[in-house]
Amino acid sequence: MILEKAVLNIKPGQSEVFELAFGEAQKIIVAMKGYINHDLLKCVEKSDTYLLLVQWETIEDHEIGFRESQQYQEWKKLLHHFYEPFPIVLHYTSIVATS
Amino acid sequence: MILEKAVLNIKPGQSEVFELAFGEAQKIIVAMKGYINHDLLKCVEKSDTYLLLVQWETIEDHEIGFRESQQYQEWKKLLHHFYEPFPIVLHYTSIVATS
Repeated sequence: MILEKAVLNIKPGQSEVFELAFGEAQKIIVAMKGYINHDLLKCVEKSDTYLLLVQWETIEDHEIGFRESQQYQEWKKLLHHFYEPFPIVLHYTSIVATS
Repeated sequence: MILEKAVLNIKPGQSEVFELAFGEAQKIIVAMKGYINHDLLKCVEKSDTYLLLVQWETIEDHEIGFRESQQYQEWKKLLHHFYEPFPIVLHYTSIVATS
């Protein structure tokens, strides 16, 4: 299991529209092979800043299965124009967890 | 409910010892008022890089209840010397969630 993490910086003043677009875009990701769950969180301290967390079964499910899919083109169209700068996406594996 | 997020950059070569120290330190945090759960994750792409996620009931539980506690002094002693640079800690609130 792998966690995809990206801090999303949204162009000033576009956060509300971004949230609406994300509401649509998330329908794409939840249907992908290897998708487990996701969360979009708004930063308390910095305006127009979000944290996107997506759990995948494997890194390939994200990097190949999703990013090389037709559906990713739709995701890009919905979301990528909101970002400035373009986010750095990294993957993490849990080494301790309590919940 | 609030998510505390910090990317932790560990001094080169100290990751293994850091993980051991974190194993001790997490005993402190789980006992604090307002603590819900936490996860420490290791970055796939960047060595000596971790993601710390802690869920708190309120931001005050973290910033006042924990950071102004005696227990925080112990947490600092165990962990802060591993960080370079010192991490930027931000808080996020979920706006969408599926799991």
